[in-house]
Amino acid sequence: MIKGIAASAGVAVSKVFKLSHPVLEIEQRSANADEEITKLHNAVTEAQKDIELIKQNAVGRLADEELAIFDAHLMVTQDPEFIGQVEAKINDESVNAEFAVKEISDMFIGMFESMDDPYFRERAADIKDVTYRIQCHVMGVQTADLSSISEEVVIVAEDLTPSDTAQLDRRYVRGFATEIGGRTSHSAIMARSLEIPAVVGAGALLDKCEHGEAMILDAIDGTIIFSPDADQKKEYSAKADKFAAHKESLKVLKDAESVTKDGRVVELAGNIGTPNDVESVLTNGGEAVGLYRTEFLYMDNSELPSEEVQYEAYKKVLEAMAPGRVVVRTLDIGGDKELPYLPLPEEMNPFLGYRAIRLCLDQPEIFRPQIRALLRASVFGKLSIMFPMIATVQEFRDAKAIVEDEKKNLSKEGIAFSDDIELGMMVEIPAAAILADQFAKEADFFSIGTNDLIQYSMAADRMNEQVSYLYQPYSPSILRLVKMTIDGAHKEGKWCGMCGEMAGDERAIPLLLGLGLDEFSMSASSILEARRIIRDLSYAEMQELTDKALNCSTTEEVLELLDNVNV
Amino acid sequence: MIKGIAASAGVAVSKVFKLSHPVLEIEQRSANADEEITKLHNAVTEAQKDIELIKQNAVGRLADEELAIFDAHLMVTQDPEFIGQVEAKINDESVNAEFAVKEISDMFIGMFESMDDPYFRERAADIKDVTYRIQCHVMGVQTADLSSISEEVVIVAEDLTPSDTAQLDRRYVRGFATEIGGRTSHSAIMARSLEIPAVVGAGALLDKCEHGEAMILDAIDGTIIFSPDADQKKEYSAKADKFAAHKESLKVLKDAESVTKDGRVVELAGNIGTPNDVESVLTNGGEAVGLYRTEFLYMDNSELPSEEVQYEAYKKVLEAMAPGRVVVRTLDIGGDKELPYLPLPEEMNPFLGYRAIRLCLDQPEIFRPQIRALLRASVFGKLSIMFPMIATVQEFRDAKAIVEDEKKNLSKEGIAFSDDIELGMMVEIPAAAILADQFAKEADFFSIGTNDLIQYSMAADRMNEQVSYLYQPYSPSILRLVKMTIDGAHKEGKWCGMCGEMAGDERAIPLLLGLGLDEFSMSASSILEARRIIRDLSYAEMQELTDKALNCSTTEEVLELLDNVNV
Repeated sequence: MIKGIAASAGVAVSKVFKLSHPVLEIEQRSANADEEITKLHNAVTEAQKDIELIKQNAVGRLADEELAIFDAHLMVTQDPEFIGQVEAKINDESVNAEFAVKEISDMFIGMFESMDDPYFRERAADIKDVTYRIQCHVMGVQTADLSSISEEVVIVAEDLTPSDTAQLDRRYVRGFATEIGGRTSHSAIMARSLEIPAVVGAGALLDKCEHGEAMILDAIDGTIIFSPDADQKKEYSAKADKFAAHKESLKVLKDAESVTKDGRVVELAGNIGTPNDVESVLTNGGEAVGLYRTEFLYMDNSELPSEEVQYEAYKKVLEAMAPGRVVVRTLDIGGDKELPYLPLPEEMNPFLGYRAIRLCLDQPEIFRPQIRALLRASVFGKLSIMFPMIATVQEFRDAKAIVEDEKKNLSKEGIAFSDDIELGMMVEIPAAAILADQFAKEADFFSIGTNDLIQYSMAADRMNEQVSYLYQPYSPSILRLVKMTIDGAHKEGKWCGMCGEMAGDERAIPLLLGLGLDEFSMSASSILEARRIIRDLSYAEMQELTDKALNCSTTEEVLELLDNVNV
Repeated sequence: MIKGIAASAGVAVSKVFKLSHPVLEIEQRSANADEEITKLHNAVTEAQKDIELIKQNAVGRLADEELAIFDAHLMVTQDPEFIGQVEAKINDESVNAEFAVKEISDMFIGMFESMDDPYFRERAADIKDVTYRIQCHVMGVQTADLSSISEEVVIVAEDLTPSDTAQLDRRYVRGFATEIGGRTSHSAIMARSLEIPAVVGAGALLDKCEHGEAMILDAIDGTIIFSPDADQKKEYSAKADKFAAHKESLKVLKDAESVTKDGRVVELAGNIGTPNDVESVLTNGGEAVGLYRTEFLYMDNSELPSEEVQYEAYKKVLEAMAPGRVVVRTLDIGGDKELPYLPLPEEMNPFLGYRAIRLCLDQPEIFRPQIRALLRASVFGKLSIMFPMIATVQEFRDAKAIVEDEKKNLSKEGIAFSDDIELGMMVEIPAAAILADQFAKEADFFSIGTNDLIQYSMAADRMNEQVSYLYQPYSPSILRLVKMTIDGAHKEGKWCGMCGEMAGDERAIPLLLGLGLDEFSMSASSILEARRIIRDLSYAEMQELTDKALNCSTTEEVLELLDNVNV
């Protein structure tokens, strides 16, 4: 019995499919630059052919949003910045092509992996995937292939690449188990998105199993059993059936109201990163988009996206979600998120630095086209604009003034925009939560960003392992900040949502409900379970629970209280 | 009329003494390593002789604490780490000695200058001073000398080095004006400490004046006038007299009670960095030491200071201040403050990282000797121990447990300690302020650290110029956090102080008084003025003012309220 991290719930009783990608031993060698550049170009061409082939095989089987990954991979192979830097390295240093690819890609991968955002982590995984493919071609190494699977299996691998996950045939793949990775690694995110049970970060696995042997994957509590006995098979088959039944029962909640037993109605929304993600929000019964991160538009381009490009994206999302609300967060770049074409200063503490609304107010030439694109798109649905990293009322006023100014400009130009656009803000800085009653006089709504709010309130960078124990969403101080924010909004008749990880956390939902949260925005795949929980709870009881939690002195005491809630 | 930053209040009508240190043009040259090392050693010996001579001339004229600077400078010239690295650079790269000194010292200076702590900035100034002296000797350049001053002057310089300020003869030097620097630069700090009027950061000055010409220095509003006319001389002489009279009137408050017109008594205390600083607290009528930063003990050593070394220092402070209270802050290292002998991880956001109590709880072998030294010293006065960077109640409990544990150990060993030691904490992390009522059940007192509290609450690194506009001590959110902290303490019958810059700020005192602050700890030189202000105010009126401030929405609104307070 091996323990790992349950990354995507589910249970499978099936057999092992060992997937191992050869480890490439890449050393620096002196080489003829011209020959190496020829090798590089041939390998890139071969990699492009591979990707095209995999994509063609997947058409019809995968949704558009999943197919898009192959376009992203093709883009990497065509990226003049990336390939150009590799060529320059080969020319300047007369080194072997695979080494040059490694050096340049490691730099990009390191940059993206250090970012605290699922979107950028995906980019790191993509670059790793593509460069591995190119290196294999340079070195003449055969790569593994998942297209041969034609019976029910559980995949066991060191890790799954984006091409692997995109090729997973859900008819046959019952789950996967990986040796490395955590809840936020690429394969974990994809498993949840594809709703395939997965256990990640389980340590050595490939050495402990044989291809084709029976295995159990319990991705509810993170257990892996190779060669189970008959009793174990029976036990886990029953658990699998129970889980499947539960999942089926959630489906009937797709169009149900998000209402407690005693009649408190809340809104369940989804977080999205690209227009394609709306589909999944709708499929999972989301009533709105509570957070549309617009950074992808800026990252996927080699220059600032034009007003037109942005307009098309916002229009697509608004139309798809209408009449449901779409909360669009304006550009949240800077800090740990960089744009290749936008030079930003080196900062000693980027999390406390020049980013998001600070940058947008300082560089209106970047901000205004986004506002214009949003206003123009507003006629296609129900738009709410949300400013990130607001710390002072003055900043909110300044941002609002730019919106009003652009409205005037559009009116002059005779361009239509909706007269019913909400202007709100992220509450992710302690100062904003503490002064919420004053902000609520000017903002139409709040959405609490728990990740940042927790790290600033605790003065602890959650990406820093030595202080990550201080990332305590259930700390009474954090709950009090959430309470102040919600109360501040309600005092002025405004609504308050939450779009941080906490909003979709099963354990947090009873508390957030009791605190009076109006809108919960989360990964699409969590929405139905959240609705079930809310429908099983009493608002009055959760208010009592919350009052107790607010008077606890430690996280442990709050968690003890929550252990008594039956959800 | 030239405008600069008023760094130390006062007015002088006097004449110019131009002090210019030759600018050294240091370029990298290939050189014979042995010869350069001989040059280096000779220059170091000459520099040591200079320093010894300046020190001898100053004995009797300067206080012990001012003389100590020369010992610090001698230590730099003897520091095996520093000189060793310079020698290694000369040997490894066969470069000229002055260049090697520059490269190595720039590294150390950069490290210390980036730290947000007056003590470390002083270290940077010291290293700059000593290395300049060594370089001058290597290059055969004559340096300027202040010992020749024998009449009343105002010194005009690009900047003053620590050796310059230590040589200032207060009988003759009526003030100084510098081209560079800010309120926290070495020369500004020294000016306040020596109570010499100073205007810093005034831009080009040396080109605009002649040695010996008449000049006016108004360091109340930061004005410099060269060759003033008769009217100006008369006007500023009157202003100087008025200032002197005011200062004289403050002296009678040295032993007066810190009490408002309507009878509210508070405590006025001083912040210190070394045992020698106590003298200045007493001279200025300080009733206690509200913050004793213990880092200097750790920085001035090439290894962790022994329990014995610490005991002697703490004993000295407690004895000198008795029966007044001494609040000792336990080691606040890490983040931006590094110790050469204590390797710490590179962090992406050091202000949100592994530092202070986090490091001490993680490495009790560093923490316990400090606690033992404090407990042993406690019999010599009134000791309060304060833990920095407390974010959770659990951390406070863990720190307290170590104190209790060491008490037991001392009892077993038959070593005495006071049975009346307060255990308190800095409130400098938003989470602690928000949960103050819970912390107050376990802590004996709070001391609010405004610098960190503001930067975390606003999520803005105040050392980062692009976001320093968010460092807003008068923001209503900050005032509310201060209020929560004070109310939390009072609810449990505990006292609450403040040891951040705000506590000594004339404009903030009325607000802090109204919020109910019990103890104000500041630079010694601010204490008498603070006492005067407090004695002129009505507590009841300030409470009314504060209620209004807490309901403002912006810093600007709060400042407007304060403009109406007559202090």
